[in-house]
Amino acid sequence: MSHAAMLRPGSTIGILGGGQLARMIALAAAPLGLKTHIYAPEAGSPAFDVATAHSRAAYDDTDALDRFAAAVDVVTYEFENVPVATAEHLAKTIAVHPGTRALGITQERLLEKSFVAGLGIETAPFAKVDTLEELEEALSVIGRPAVLKTRRFGYDGKGQTMIREGDSAASAFDAIGRHPAILEGFVPFVREVSVVAARRADGAFAAYEVTENEHRHHILHRSTVPANVTSMGEAAAGEIARQIADALGYVGVFAVELFVVGSGIDERIVVNEIAPRVHNSGHWTLDGADTSQFEQHVRAISGWPLGSTARRGPRVEMTNLIGDEAGEWHHILETPGAHLHLYGKAEARAGRKMGHWTRVLPE
Amino acid sequence: MSHAAMLRPGSTIGILGGGQLARMIALAAAPLGLKTHIYAPEAGSPAFDVATAHSRAAYDDTDALDRFAAAVDVVTYEFENVPVATAEHLAKTIAVHPGTRALGITQERLLEKSFVAGLGIETAPFAKVDTLEELEEALSVIGRPAVLKTRRFGYDGKGQTMIREGDSAASAFDAIGRHPAILEGFVPFVREVSVVAARRADGAFAAYEVTENEHRHHILHRSTVPANVTSMGEAAAGEIARQIADALGYVGVFAVELFVVGSGIDERIVVNEIAPRVHNSGHWTLDGADTSQFEQHVRAISGWPLGSTARRGPRVEMTNLIGDEAGEWHHILETPGAHLHLYGKAEARAGRKMGHWTRVLPE
Repeated sequence: MSHAAMLRPGSTIGILGGGQLARMIALAAAPLGLKTHIYAPEAGSPAFDVATAHSRAAYDDTDALDRFAAAVDVVTYEFENVPVATAEHLAKTIAVHPGTRALGITQERLLEKSFVAGLGIETAPFAKVDTLEELEEALSVIGRPAVLKTRRFGYDGKGQTMIREGDSAASAFDAIGRHPAILEGFVPFVREVSVVAARRADGAFAAYEVTENEHRHHILHRSTVPANVTSMGEAAAGEIARQIADALGYVGVFAVELFVVGSGIDERIVVNEIAPRVHNSGHWTLDGADTSQFEQHVRAISGWPLGSTARRGPRVEMTNLIGDEAGEWHHILETPGAHLHLYGKAEARAGRKMGHWTRVLPE
Repeated sequence: MSHAAMLRPGSTIGILGGGQLARMIALAAAPLGLKTHIYAPEAGSPAFDVATAHSRAAYDDTDALDRFAAAVDVVTYEFENVPVATAEHLAKTIAVHPGTRALGITQERLLEKSFVAGLGIETAPFAKVDTLEELEEALSVIGRPAVLKTRRFGYDGKGQTMIREGDSAASAFDAIGRHPAILEGFVPFVREVSVVAARRADGAFAAYEVTENEHRHHILHRSTVPANVTSMGEAAAGEIARQIADALGYVGVFAVELFVVGSGIDERIVVNEIAPRVHNSGHWTLDGADTSQFEQHVRAISGWPLGSTARRGPRVEMTNLIGDEAGEWHHILETPGAHLHLYGKAEARAGRKMGHWTRVLPE
């Protein structure tokens, strides 16, 4: 986006997707004097409740997309599985940030891994798997345990299976539906961390501190800042994020999920995956940083100055509320330093992200 | 509100009035998992943009009020000039917080002054003025300078006139339209401060720190926390707020505007007026306190635990953006520690509150 295309207050941000991330982007846009327009196919999308306007339509409904493009001043999205054709159609008439290139690469695990490795950044060892023969050959090179993943549309542990000593390659391939896949070597990590950062079209860049992430059942349970990494690791993670964003010509907030391998002088940072959007591991910034990742995203896609990423307080924790855990809301309201964030979802299904809470801790 | 009537997430808060205060209440309700429904007569009300639903109707449209009451779980309001008849009509079928008693008293300056004085709390000297004869008698008792104010519907300096030595009483009475009035003695204050506090139906109470307020042209220009008052003054202000809230059986957030008279050991705190709502002088809490006044109001009217009122950082400033001043938005976005809050109003008329910004200062 050129300086000339800088948005003015009163403009409308169009958001593809109507879940909690779109909801929190909309809540961050309003105090900046911006309107929001949500585009999502699902009735009762949580973001509809806080947006200026919404269109309920399918992602391949080009008439609805054209009306949406005409009603907004910039388009962004809350999830990386927006069809590239949708983004490309919109991009004919309106700025779409992040761009379709970032979307195309991060939607396809093999493209993404090759892109990261091509920057000279360490990833898990990986190999393309289209056939059972390729899977067996990849296993012989990469070894076990290894993880077989569909190349597209995986999240929160879906579309992937672990292959351990003695496991049948054929059964594993069946388990992911024999879809085009990638085999990834197991990374013997000591912890999982992530870096959330923002880049503006002109290259201005700001990263939040590295966040340490604890998963349960493949879903993020808790993020803690600062992470238990060395200052070298902290700097390396920020530099990795910057390299990736520059190479993608990225505009907006994104996250890079990382493995920390080894410790002390042997510590290494290995890229797991890139999320071209605001990210669950950045939710701590809502109350724990000077500028939330949601406001930062709005600033970045609007061509506005990026905000301070400084942490508020000695330690910040973010804990997801999955399914019934949202029932803890009253206790959270009573907890010193805690802030509640519920997503307005009607039904607390098992495994569903219903909300989260943050806590700024005195030490 | 009894404990049994405590709201649950997913409930809907109805708000009378659609301006910036309603907008900021709605923005605070959403992360708590609450929906909002705005009721306001004006097209394009700023709060419509961020609320789950809105009704555009007149305050005396009882059919529309009945539909509104049926659609929400509690009713609150953003301004003290809601007709008492409207609140009373709604209160037949739904909880209205703050209650109609607080509304009735604070809408009428003579009732309000008498109420405060009746609690043994110091106010400016005052007298009822219905006729020119009463005005002349009041002037002879109270002296000059004095301020003649309409008893109803004044805000931001409207509906009032100063009477100095040599001014004609008749002209002053004409200037306020010979409406039922009150004459208030001039208080030789050294500064204007306010206290914003919250009370829950069961008496739970929490006050923010005293805020120092600087006005320009009768409109708040800047609030600063902490205020330049003694610790005795600070405690007295909090105690005044608690007494007033208890006597009103108040539920929700309110502000008491105060004069500080004298200094050091001679310092006195004099009540100017009560605002039965979230208040401009509490906007600093959005970024400068653990819990914003808007979230606190939602917690109080929902029967939820009140949040911490602790200040974030050594000093907090809130500056209003009046009329063209909203054009400073880009500069504010670049200012360290600053947070921008625009109200989404289309037209920057002179004297119109377009937004504000807060700044947490390192010293």
